[in-house]
Amino acid sequence: MGTGPSRYDGSSERHIPADQATVRRTNLGLVLRHLRDSGPRSRARIAQETGLNKATVSSLVAELAERRLVSTGDVDRAGSVGRPGLTVHLDGACVCGIGVELNVDYAAALVLDLRGQVLFEQRLALDVPALGAERTLDAVAGLVTEAVAATAGRGARPVGLTVAVAGLVRSVDGVVTLAPNIGWRDVAVLDGLRARLDVDFPIRVENDANLSAIAEWAMGSEARTPDLVYLTGEVGVGGGVIVAGRLLRGAGGLSGEVGHTSLGDPDAVCGCGRRGCWETVVGLAALLRAAADPGDPVHDPGRDLEARLAEVARRAGDGDLRTLAALQQVGRSLGTGAAVLVNLFNPGVVILGGYFAVLGPFFLEPLQAELEARVLGPGVAGARVALSTLGFTAAVRGGAHVALETVFDDPTLVPVPAALEPAGAR
Amino acid sequence: MGTGPSRYDGSSERHIPADQATVRRTNLGLVLRHLRDSGPRSRARIAQETGLNKATVSSLVAELAERRLVSTGDVDRAGSVGRPGLTVHLDGACVCGIGVELNVDYAAALVLDLRGQVLFEQRLALDVPALGAERTLDAVAGLVTEAVAATAGRGARPVGLTVAVAGLVRSVDGVVTLAPNIGWRDVAVLDGLRARLDVDFPIRVENDANLSAIAEWAMGSEARTPDLVYLTGEVGVGGGVIVAGRLLRGAGGLSGEVGHTSLGDPDAVCGCGRRGCWETVVGLAALLRAAADPGDPVHDPGRDLEARLAEVARRAGDGDLRTLAALQQVGRSLGTGAAVLVNLFNPGVVILGGYFAVLGPFFLEPLQAELEARVLGPGVAGARVALSTLGFTAAVRGGAHVALETVFDDPTLVPVPAALEPAGAR
Repeated sequence: MGTGPSRYDGSSERHIPADQATVRRTNLGLVLRHLRDSGPRSRARIAQETGLNKATVSSLVAELAERRLVSTGDVDRAGSVGRPGLTVHLDGACVCGIGVELNVDYAAALVLDLRGQVLFEQRLALDVPALGAERTLDAVAGLVTEAVAATAGRGARPVGLTVAVAGLVRSVDGVVTLAPNIGWRDVAVLDGLRARLDVDFPIRVENDANLSAIAEWAMGSEARTPDLVYLTGEVGVGGGVIVAGRLLRGAGGLSGEVGHTSLGDPDAVCGCGRRGCWETVVGLAALLRAAADPGDPVHDPGRDLEARLAEVARRAGDGDLRTLAALQQVGRSLGTGAAVLVNLFNPGVVILGGYFAVLGPFFLEPLQAELEARVLGPGVAGARVALSTLGFTAAVRGGAHVALETVFDDPTLVPVPAALEPAGAR
Repeated sequence: MGTGPSRYDGSSERHIPADQATVRRTNLGLVLRHLRDSGPRSRARIAQETGLNKATVSSLVAELAERRLVSTGDVDRAGSVGRPGLTVHLDGACVCGIGVELNVDYAAALVLDLRGQVLFEQRLALDVPALGAERTLDAVAGLVTEAVAATAGRGARPVGLTVAVAGLVRSVDGVVTLAPNIGWRDVAVLDGLRARLDVDFPIRVENDANLSAIAEWAMGSEARTPDLVYLTGEVGVGGGVIVAGRLLRGAGGLSGEVGHTSLGDPDAVCGCGRRGCWETVVGLAALLRAAADPGDPVHDPGRDLEARLAEVARRAGDGDLRTLAALQQVGRSLGTGAAVLVNLFNPGVVILGGYFAVLGPFFLEPLQAELEARVLGPGVAGARVALSTLGFTAAVRGGAHVALETVFDDPTLVPVPAALEPAGAR
């Protein structure tokens, strides 16, 4: 709007071709998303369910098939009173999205094809604070290169890369403005990766918990719950919020900051220099400190985190009083903070990820008790608590999903294979 | 989607008339909203700025004029290189929206016409907790009847009524599930008003702070800031949040609950029975208790609230140390809670309403200091703090605005005047 008088030439017809192309792209995406979300079905059923007419659907499916994003399979006998049609289903093994996570003590990569199948997965132990930004970005670039090579071998072309970072990310230019646990301030992750990678697909940088929330919404056990709060505990504590089916970004993409927010004991001093940060009472360090003496092997950052958490769970299962008290205390503190989030966001579900999910069975009872005591809305305002089933892969799955969204937004970005042949072939 | 096979009849053409009518309604609303948001302009400019073609715009404007929602005025010389056209502007003095607020100690009504002009305004002192639900609803119904009569005399037909209540509202059926300061639990406000009012327009019930947030977004000093947090202090403390230009509702319409959320001193006991409620440190009672002895006239609920607040401001202006210390303390507590909201929502602006706005100049410094100390994002994550300019009318303005939205969503709901004449006249 308000493009100024000089751009007005009196002939609105000139815009029509562009609009038709936009409508076509939107409808291609609509059909592709419908197949992803609702499963394989006939053209007739797609028409019926999307409101598009049958001729249009046939033409759209033909174009999607030409771009190798869908293919046709068995006869669909549901959803039509006429002649049964062949089912159309997502193919898309030829395109993929890459998700990479950069956390305090590891980097991970995961590649999904259009159907959500995992094509590649890798996790690298990395002491990021000690390594520094440049060498960390070298390692991340190496991980991406490996992922690209592995998927190329399977005939899949990456359409995008999303890098999840455990810190405040200015997504507009991919700068990590502040990552207290990594010790980074104003690190240009996007530019650093662009300089290291010779790739033709877009790269984005996002907060890790935001991407995990997207993964839960897209493929978690509580998928498609319109209002969803995701909380993850690792070295730091992160939050991501889905509001009415969309990620809450806020004015500058900094929303969902929970770890360094006064949601716990207001007097506890945090490593970031503030008081009352939630991380001081629900972060991994807080749990381990309460559960075991300093020399105990569960504190050893050199040991695999999942093995250390399994050891804590084993002790709790054996009835070790100190371990149980520590879990009880962290569960209560999770509840006091979660109650604030439930009062503010009124989510349908609160999903616990990271170590909160691994030890979740021990947290649920004290957490629920705090919610019941502190949430104003009757019946905890209808909020359920669920443990993530995505494990530590939520952020990379969310990243790969976001990378693939470009194809659902505009399927014409995926070239017709013939166009890749020598010039003149078409 | 998924309407089931039995409804599919194979002829998509049958849907086309309905679709065309939908497109027509959408475009009528688009033009009407554009005139509201961007001001009077020629048909040519509307076409240029909305992307609709000129013939369509002329036809849409003709229909809107027929329904008396727009009229044409002066020559518009901007925005067109061709023959200058007459400006079209919102008329709509014949339709209006009614907003009513029900708070602890008053009920208020305000009526807006389509252009946002106030047609009627009234405020009624009311001891709602003492009066009980039935007699309160009698009073509210009386207020509505008065508003309808006053606007009918001016030729304006109400298109809707929105009732703002200071409590948790289940908007789907208009039940106030819990209003701690009023002392209500499960009061059927919508049904109660329907039984008392013989009106043909829709009635909605909403949380007061949510409607105030909408008013700030639509007509406040920070209007159209996409991410906005509104906080109001009256007897209770309320919050409303706009996310990407839309009200945050949450799964059950209970979002934005701040007053009874642990955002302050965790040990303070609240009237609601919980500990740590923000209201205990930033509610009006907390300020007055800190500022003056029990016998002081500023405590007298029989005196006008604005006069009592003016007295507090006068004392602070005169340098009264106890008053200044109380304001300083409340400002700090406002800051600790606001910091949580800024970390979570990353708003472009935090707007203070109710008594927070009246005494705002005294709160801003300590509030800003807490934000700077507690918000993780650099530069308070870019959040400004602003004082509402809507005074105590924000909720009723938001209510009237929401009532009018039905006309912008579907201008054909407003009948062509001839249709109101005796049958056969058209």
